[in-house]
Amino acid sequence: MAAKKILLIVCDGLSDRPVKEFDRKTPLQAARKPAMDALARHGISGTMDIIGHGVIPGSDTAHLALFGYDPYKVYTGRGPIEAAGAGVDVSRDDVAFRCNFATVDDSFNVLDRRAGRIKTGTGELAKAVTGMTIEDVSTVFKEGSEHRGVLVLKGVGLDHRVTDVDPHHEGKVLVSRPMVPGAEKTARVVNEFVKRSATILSTHPVNKKRVEDGLPPANAILPRGAGSLKELEPINDLYGMKCAAVAGVTLVKGICRMVGMTVPDVPGATGGLDTDYRAKGVAALRLLETHDFVFVNVKAGDVAGHDGDFRTKVRVVESIDMMLGLVLKDIHEDVVVALTCDHSTPVSVKEHSADPVPLTISGGGSRVDGVKEFDEISVASGALGRIRGTDLMPILMGVADRARKFGA
Amino acid sequence: MAAKKILLIVCDGLSDRPVKEFDRKTPLQAARKPAMDALARHGISGTMDIIGHGVIPGSDTAHLALFGYDPYKVYTGRGPIEAAGAGVDVSRDDVAFRCNFATVDDSFNVLDRRAGRIKTGTGELAKAVTGMTIEDVSTVFKEGSEHRGVLVLKGVGLDHRVTDVDPHHEGKVLVSRPMVPGAEKTARVVNEFVKRSATILSTHPVNKKRVEDGLPPANAILPRGAGSLKELEPINDLYGMKCAAVAGVTLVKGICRMVGMTVPDVPGATGGLDTDYRAKGVAALRLLETHDFVFVNVKAGDVAGHDGDFRTKVRVVESIDMMLGLVLKDIHEDVVVALTCDHSTPVSVKEHSADPVPLTISGGGSRVDGVKEFDEISVASGALGRIRGTDLMPILMGVADRARKFGA
Repeated sequence: MAAKKILLIVCDGLSDRPVKEFDRKTPLQAARKPAMDALARHGISGTMDIIGHGVIPGSDTAHLALFGYDPYKVYTGRGPIEAAGAGVDVSRDDVAFRCNFATVDDSFNVLDRRAGRIKTGTGELAKAVTGMTIEDVSTVFKEGSEHRGVLVLKGVGLDHRVTDVDPHHEGKVLVSRPMVPGAEKTARVVNEFVKRSATILSTHPVNKKRVEDGLPPANAILPRGAGSLKELEPINDLYGMKCAAVAGVTLVKGICRMVGMTVPDVPGATGGLDTDYRAKGVAALRLLETHDFVFVNVKAGDVAGHDGDFRTKVRVVESIDMMLGLVLKDIHEDVVVALTCDHSTPVSVKEHSADPVPLTISGGGSRVDGVKEFDEISVASGALGRIRGTDLMPILMGVADRARKFGA
Repeated sequence: MAAKKILLIVCDGLSDRPVKEFDRKTPLQAARKPAMDALARHGISGTMDIIGHGVIPGSDTAHLALFGYDPYKVYTGRGPIEAAGAGVDVSRDDVAFRCNFATVDDSFNVLDRRAGRIKTGTGELAKAVTGMTIEDVSTVFKEGSEHRGVLVLKGVGLDHRVTDVDPHHEGKVLVSRPMVPGAEKTARVVNEFVKRSATILSTHPVNKKRVEDGLPPANAILPRGAGSLKELEPINDLYGMKCAAVAGVTLVKGICRMVGMTVPDVPGATGGLDTDYRAKGVAALRLLETHDFVFVNVKAGDVAGHDGDFRTKVRVVESIDMMLGLVLKDIHEDVVVALTCDHSTPVSVKEHSADPVPLTISGGGSRVDGVKEFDEISVASGALGRIRGTDLMPILMGVADRARKFGA
């Protein structure tokens, strides 16, 4: 049997709970969504606990699980994921840290761990401290939102098992120490980075201006959460497929790049409510011509969920349905199409929740069950049953005739 | 989202199999149970394998699993559970043993492992041997039913990994030996307890009378099944909830106390067919005012199952339904209510069986599926699917908005 291509569409946070004020329906139950329902009618459905029962998934851990990586194993420290989110490439030999800009005194006591929650100027500060060479290690530093940033060390002989520089509360800046033999170099380099960057930051015009304005200067960088991607087998190797992603939001793009997918920038794909659904659908179809596995993340449902906005979430469902209809119209019936969510973001909660998400798989060698609608409840009586996030890729590989045989 | 309270009602052994003579219905299918059915209609349902597929749960292991403890991990030896059942407090540093009163000769050969299944006088014998101090360890001994009893060692430096004194058949009384370095003290203390208690028992009036009556004297105590609670994290810490229980039967009360729940004595809650259902419902509602999690066990269904009495079991269903109706009338809709069983006790088997049990979750952030009746078959098409006993608490935590997020 020839191996089939796979299209995985993840509707970020679209899964929900019944809402009292709207006839106890979920947004998926309330929306008109002929394409999603057609997919369910022509495939098999079920529910999925992305990480596990009663575990609220983050967007990062959720996507790792959906791609078949056990987040409890590969999630060594937040550093690489934050770096991915900030758009910094992290390769498997690198060590990445989350960082704060902080305010310290002359004796390196932390006066404010967030430098007054500094909002502007961090881009200039980051440019001033990135690109050092310490021993034979090169450093990349990039600002994140507000007082946040990421530090990536690139070189040989690095190990992420070092303690934090950030004391996590006011007090003396800590000296990073190796937690295992072999991590000494990494600790030395990060300590040296902290020293050198503090010297640079202390005289930087952005900080001089802040002091003049009576604001706490961002005169130190405090790394923490060291992590590496050593345990993360590149996705193309893991599945023997050429994988690509269409995503708007930086964190998701970062994770896709981190696992080794091709992630083109799609004009109009913003990761917001204003995203160009049509452009995403077209981009996915185009990538399917040259790739075996294409992943699409549509963020808007999560945004509406966080806003607690039922009506907008219903409109998001209908927009995604339009995109899906466009894709299904032009897609080869051999392509395995999976539609699901990375987690629930109920409008009644305005946050991620632990509720399982709906899942439908259609096309390729898929069976067909009796489920006629794509929503949280209808899919639960489907032939897929209740599975885990890390089960999805193996199941898709099976339906796409890409699974491996065990035994004779 | 504000965290919700949780009420878990466990109908002990109520789950059953179809009974030929009663139109191939189960007691749950045959009973009138408007409150249970209403709960199912307003929530999500499924089936649950308490321990695992094809494992017949005991009441002890079942309740541990329902409270989220892996019984294979925390069930070190029966000692602590027997002690809990006998109403003896066991703390985390203690080591507890199950014991038999036995008849031995002068050379410590076991003549009768059960001292003629002694029925009376063990309370007096227990009083005579409890409260020793051996090295710096104090001992608590309490009689159980018939020839049974429990021994709890309280002190520092104890370890439950010691061999049994009880030879498990007629023969020489064994000397307890440490199975790991560090358990020597425990072995010494239990051996000394066996020696000293035999001396006391040999001259005790209860035994003199037994010999006069031609009965075998209960002149030795044989400990076995040493266990500790070291691995059992207190339930309030585990979930960050204040937990309480309403239960009539001693073993279940003991397990609830063992995991750290508040277990008030409810007048009229007997653990038998004559239990005061209304009193239990009222007690549960009152405990919900001051606790986050309230567990209710109603034993009567198990009793009717062991008796093989279909008609009585149907009446038990209807009595529990009355209690549930009373509770649901007065409960806040925000409270998450879960209704299930700890195991099946089919009237056709008269014993526990491995059949999965029905489960319905309603209220709080619960979804609503299409299940309309609470019985073994109707719930199986529900949106919860088929879960394990240890999944229940995480799922309830999710529905009650008490779950933790993993990732960002």
